[in-house]
Amino acid sequence: MKLTFSPGSPFARKVRITAIELGLIDKIELVPATVAPTQPNEAYSHDISPLRKLPALILDNGEVIVDSYVIVEYLDELAGGKLIPASGAARWKVKSDHSIIQGMTDAMLLCRYEVGVRPKELLWQKWVDDQWDRTWQGLTRFENHPDILTRPFDISQIALVSLLVYADFRFPDCGWRAAFPKLAAFHATMLERPSVRASIAPAA
Amino acid sequence: MKLTFSPGSPFARKVRITAIELGLIDKIELVPATVAPTQPNEAYSHDISPLRKLPALILDNGEVIVDSYVIVEYLDELAGGKLIPASGAARWKVKSDHSIIQGMTDAMLLCRYEVGVRPKELLWQKWVDDQWDRTWQGLTRFENHPDILTRPFDISQIALVSLLVYADFRFPDCGWRAAFPKLAAFHATMLERPSVRASIAPAA
Repeated sequence: MKLTFSPGSPFARKVRITAIELGLIDKIELVPATVAPTQPNEAYSHDISPLRKLPALILDNGEVIVDSYVIVEYLDELAGGKLIPASGAARWKVKSDHSIIQGMTDAMLLCRYEVGVRPKELLWQKWVDDQWDRTWQGLTRFENHPDILTRPFDISQIALVSLLVYADFRFPDCGWRAAFPKLAAFHATMLERPSVRASIAPAA
Repeated sequence: MKLTFSPGSPFARKVRITAIELGLIDKIELVPATVAPTQPNEAYSHDISPLRKLPALILDNGEVIVDSYVIVEYLDELAGGKLIPASGAARWKVKSDHSIIQGMTDAMLLCRYEVGVRPKELLWQKWVDDQWDRTWQGLTRFENHPDILTRPFDISQIALVSLLVYADFRFPDCGWRAAFPKLAAFHATMLERPSVRASIAPAA
């Protein structure tokens, strides 16, 4: 299998950590790709995904799987189901938490595009504030309802640490650690996992 | 169960059609909600989802399930698994196609926010063109690889018709029917389904 990725992508990081945790990383060739808003990439659009987003998983038979969550589900099934509870209330809790974190990550990316990619004179501060608030409200929720931080290791925790790593990468002065001490402790613990550390080291 | 929705939301439409198709609509109370970029909604943020997005499913025990795809998976499991293949290549094909259509829908919403919500003087045309291109490339892909249009009824088809209905709602002059005749025929056939018609009639 091949996985398109960039070192900074939080969605690709989630998949890379997942693949290591599941013991599947040796079956995956990491393929660096560059996709960015307003930058055409016809080959990626045509051959991989019209969305021009990372990551995409290209199976040996040529089939392409998107998006990052479907890839993770696919890998988890290959490995026998370790990171997503198979049934019951825990299954829907993990899936729903994961979706919230994905949405928080999307919102942070929209902030990044607004302040770091869009021409300065076209910046709409209310938009930035709104998107940032979605992420921040989500962090507040998990700080105040920290069961996600301590339950058995699952995909939502991988998504959360990937988001926090992205926050450090793009918004290093945003102050999330001071605002959310439980999340800071969780992040520090997660960084002790070899899978997370490997995903942060400069990628090939 | 309760479902937050707005009549125009393509993601809520997907869930409403799904609930009708699965015979579950009578178990769901539709709760109109107003969420929009740059419009605070503290109650929704706090009680339902920090992402302030539609739809959300509120279970009778108070648990909240987001996003639209997880809701659909939940309902499909309740109904015994009718709209998402349970295993094999078909499962990943449907899930991946669904994710592409969700991304196309997100891109169309970003176009809507840029041209219809953002102050005119802050519009970045390259951003609109880029997001629109993602949707258009996706439609081109499904026109050229139309297996999605004819295979057994599944969640990706519901997502696709929900996207096309949204295109007619927000971008009625975009010309998708002329550009994509197979998608136009698919849309017309889907509109014969009572579930789709019911979702388009003015909601309660």
